[in-house]
Amino acid sequence: MSIITLMTDFGIKDGNVGVMKGIIYGIAPDARLVDLSHMIGAQNVREAAIVLARSAPFFPPGTVHMVVVDPGVGTARRPIAVKMGGQYYVGPDNGTLTFWLETLEQTSQPVTAVHLDKPAYWLKDVSYVFHGRDIFSPVAARLSTGTSLELMGSIIHDPQRISLPQPVRESSQLTGEVMHIDHFGNAGSNIQIHHLLQLLGQPAGQTAIGSQGDQREMINLLLARKDDLSVEVSGVTMRGLVAAFGERRPGEPAALISSTGSLFASVVNGSFAGTYGTRTGARFIVRVRG
Amino acid sequence: MSIITLMTDFGIKDGNVGVMKGIIYGIAPDARLVDLSHMIGAQNVREAAIVLARSAPFFPPGTVHMVVVDPGVGTARRPIAVKMGGQYYVGPDNGTLTFWLETLEQTSQPVTAVHLDKPAYWLKDVSYVFHGRDIFSPVAARLSTGTSLELMGSIIHDPQRISLPQPVRESSQLTGEVMHIDHFGNAGSNIQIHHLLQLLGQPAGQTAIGSQGDQREMINLLLARKDDLSVEVSGVTMRGLVAAFGERRPGEPAALISSTGSLFASVVNGSFAGTYGTRTGARFIVRVRG
Amino acid sequence: MSIITLMTDFGIKDGNVGVMKGIIYGIAPDARLVDLSHMIGAQNVREAAIVLARSAPFFPPGTVHMVVVDPGVGTARRPIAVKMGGQYYVGPDNGTLTFWLETLEQTSQPVTAVHLDKPAYWLKDVSYVFHGRDIFSPVAARLSTGTSLELMGSIIHDPQRISLPQPVRESSQLTGEVMHIDHFGNAGSNIQIHHLLQLLGQPAGQTAIGSQGDQREMINLLLARKDDLSVEVSGVTMRGLVAAFGERRPGEPAALISSTGSLFASVVNGSFAGTYGTRTGARFIVRVRG
Repeated sequence: MSIITLMTDFGIKDGNVGVMKGIIYGIAPDARLVDLSHMIGAQNVREAAIVLARSAPFFPPGTVHMVVVDPGVGTARRPIAVKMGGQYYVGPDNGTLTFWLETLEQTSQPVTAVHLDKPAYWLKDVSYVFHGRDIFSPVAARLSTGTSLELMGSIIHDPQRISLPQPVRESSQLTGEVMHIDHFGNAGSNIQIHHLLQLLGQPAGQTAIGSQGDQREMINLLLARKDDLSVEVSGVTMRGLVAAFGERRPGEPAALISSTGSLFASVVNGSFAGTYGTRTGARFIVRVRG
Repeated sequence: MSIITLMTDFGIKDGNVGVMKGIIYGIAPDARLVDLSHMIGAQNVREAAIVLARSAPFFPPGTVHMVVVDPGVGTARRPIAVKMGGQYYVGPDNGTLTFWLETLEQTSQPVTAVHLDKPAYWLKDVSYVFHGRDIFSPVAARLSTGTSLELMGSIIHDPQRISLPQPVRESSQLTGEVMHIDHFGNAGSNIQIHHLLQLLGQPAGQTAIGSQGDQREMINLLLARKDDLSVEVSGVTMRGLVAAFGERRPGEPAALISSTGSLFASVVNGSFAGTYGTRTGARFIVRVRG
Repeated sequence: MSIITLMTDFGIKDGNVGVMKGIIYGIAPDARLVDLSHMIGAQNVREAAIVLARSAPFFPPGTVHMVVVDPGVGTARRPIAVKMGGQYYVGPDNGTLTFWLETLEQTSQPVTAVHLDKPAYWLKDVSYVFHGRDIFSPVAARLSTGTSLELMGSIIHDPQRISLPQPVRESSQLTGEVMHIDHFGNAGSNIQIHHLLQLLGQPAGQTAIGSQGDQREMINLLLARKDDLSVEVSGVTMRGLVAAFGERRPGEPAALISSTGSLFASVVNGSFAGTYGTRTGARFIVRVRG
């Protein structure tokens, strides 16, 4: 009865996601399958890692997250499975689990990782190019039906990690960058609530991507001083943050805190990126107003 | 065991739909989840309302339709839940349920609406920007497991409504407009079967979007006189309606009655909108042939 | 508890796929629904037939594959249901099942086909334009709950077939063509493993699309001689095949065998079609190197 989520860069036209679901249902007919995204940029491990860290906290214990964004398929990169925070990651060992792992490590939650090196738990024939079908789907299905992690692989302690660029603070200015343009054209940054509180002289515990802990309290602290900040992206300066879109008129730009705790720039009922030509990597500057 | 449908303007790349499903399965592990569409135009409440009215009649009793096309998120617009026609609507109070409600009102079916004003039934922390996750998903899940509507909100009698432009009749001519361009490039209009029968001097009961009642009888009445009409869209005149695509050759334009009872213009095995540059709002003129 | 897959050319924005799922769940509440693809090219029966043949072998017995790519809807083309290989096809009689059927015929598996001519098993009102909703969904749902094929239609022995262009061999050269450009920009051909073995003078049993039988053995035979071949597509010559992407550097072109046994051209971590302007129908030339 457990949930298996699927995230890939496969797109939705070629049938490959459906084939993985066929394998999974063949082994775990009672699984609930949830598509997180199949439109991750091709081979964009960082994007997959961000979406995973933002999403996993909202799933119940026992959920298996299978992620197949796999530029190294067919090379020596390891297939892995990791039990973390009462849920599971299954996929290539390429750093996709990094930001979710960092969140869990802040609260010292137990993590068990294995190198999937037991072909008995895979499809009989493993191709060189489609491990999502041949290795990860059968392993994810077996985890969901109760086969133990340790049975399907050998313990490892060094899953690969990737890093995000960190915002840079210089006196009363913080410079970050655009990490993600979403479906609405919102420009999301690598600037989290705690960076903004620190800039305002209110030191705060670090908030990782997707952490839910003290976020509401911190966001209220921040919103109490929202008029003390200005945000500049792509040549547009927004004076003050807003709590909700309704504080600006349709068509106006606005800087907000996202539902997972990062600063983003939006146009009310419009597209920030479309209007101002913003792309991933563009500078995101926050200043304390004099 | 009930069904929950999801309709949003979130797109399919950012993981937000998946997160809502995680919340729902956490509360209602036996729900069946059906995606109606996540490609509704951003903030396009009218498009969502049309798709909902066309779709709901084909779902079984007890189905919960959660629709999150929500330009007013974070403002004073109310979150609501409505029991109607033995099914449920959950979403913002912005008129999304209008056309479905009009259909049900024609047969005097009971409607119960509540303002969702009991935070005990939501996620613990509610963001300013993602009520689909924080309010509507937990409420939809609880409806599907049997929590009563009245427990989760206070009765209201004035859910918001929106209106569609109505076709205008002048003697033997009817002028409507294009409401929707579908995936195939078909141009759908606001002209329903009963408008056409009235134009032909055969007064008929009103048919709302998606109504199934006497439609087959009315469509047969209409098709008996299909050669008496001509349809003009984007400078193309189609003489007579056709019952099925096979009555014209591939590449030819044709005017038909859609599977939910509205007049549309198509190119057989092609794209009407792509071929003739038709857009939403373009005029749709029907004439009785002399 | 059986699986129903859905493949259409409906796209994902108009709600029509959701409506079919509403019908299905109304009849078969315990079905597991899997979307194979709704982005098949409009009316592209050949593309649907290829995706079906590649996908079906990975689904468990009893699976019902409903495919609605239906240029002839509303004409005299028959609606059919076919039991084949322990699974089912439901859809229009237009050749969509051809390549899967050919695979099964190689191992003489039993096939039972019926013309769906019993309206008692359909929705009460059948439209002229949406048989996916009105005929195929209720029939697929009933098959999954155990209603027998023979009850819902009359036996036929002549389901329609389509043909793929076959590669042409001239002494030490084989000329095929591009069948499919996938989401990553890989160019897939109509050249299967057995064609390449024959070109190398190693006669082999025919391998149909998606056949899994002796494929691993044949692929190893082929890879043992991978440096003896060169592949030319869109003016690019690739010397030798590779087993996995890792044998070439990012950005380099490579010729590989797909996970379902056909030759394709790729750019490592890039798009072959995007880089070289390749389209469906382009020539795919394989030469034995002197």
